[in-house]
Amino acid sequence: MTLSRYSLIAAATLTTALLASTSSQADVDKAIEYRQDALSVMAWQIGPLGDMAQGKIDYDAEEFARRAENLDAVADLPWEGFVEGSLRGDNHGVDTDALAEIADDWEDFESRQQALVEEAAKLAELAQGDDFAAMRQQVASVADTCKGCHDNYRAE
Amino acid sequence: MTLSRYSLIAAATLTTALLASTSSQADVDKAIEYRQDALSVMAWQIGPLGDMAQGKIDYDAEEFARRAENLDAVADLPWEGFVEGSLRGDNHGVDTDALAEIADDWEDFESRQQALVEEAAKLAELAQGDDFAAMRQQVASVADTCKGCHDNYRAE
Repeated sequence: MTLSRYSLIAAATLTTALLASTSSQADVDKAIEYRQDALSVMAWQIGPLGDMAQGKIDYDAEEFARRAENLDAVADLPWEGFVEGSLRGDNHGVDTDALAEIADDWEDFESRQQALVEEAAKLAELAQGDDFAAMRQQVASVADTCKGCHDNYRAE
Repeated sequence: MTLSRYSLIAAATLTTALLASTSSQADVDKAIEYRQDALSVMAWQIGPLGDMAQGKIDYDAEEFARRAENLDAVADLPWEGFVEGSLRGDNHGVDTDALAEIADDWEDFESRQQALVEEAAKLAELAQGDDFAAMRQQVASVADTCKGCHDNYRAE
């Protein structure tokens, strides 16, 4: 039963009172919608950082720092939405691209979350300085963590 | 032309390169979806705080502090999504409950954003201590700022 380890770890790590005490279909759907919303907010914040890093728009120090700070603020938010029964192939009412492999490779999935949190924090710190070359490189590192997770755990 | 002042203020305050350089229908729709996502994330974080404040679930100091910190982190995020042309009655493709009065009363709308940011920061600070009575009262203050804006500017 591949979900048993996932269930145990999820119970230990996703310890929100809200989610721990409920597991109805409606609650699972709410969790899916929450994580999708949080990931969309993250994508919105990353957008201008990527555009500046790639030269699509001019670098603006204040704007860059604000976006990096926002990204840092939301980087740890989406993950609690990956509750038991919320992956593709589970029985629920909300479309999700989150693959069942997340449950099988839960420790890897968690380490990738942590990597994003750390890379985002580093970007926010760099953004307080004036080394734009380092900032650009760090945007790429952040983007790599996004892509790594998407490549492994998101349906195409 | 009620939007002219709004436009000027919006141009001055919502100075993201992303939005300032674009005003297509698609971009307005993206901004509406962004603010709705960000407000949903905010609501998700507030939920357990309200439940603990109202005694619906047991007070958990760590959980309360984490939620308050998350709320503080996202309290200033949704507002950049209120771009010109994104209110109810404007011509766009995404449903919105945001009333046209927001444009007419932009300064009031902004002061209410700021009030939420300040009340959320105060809650996060209180949550580091052990005065649960003060925390409960502060949750009510946060909720009042939400309600005040909804009562004035959100369609029923």
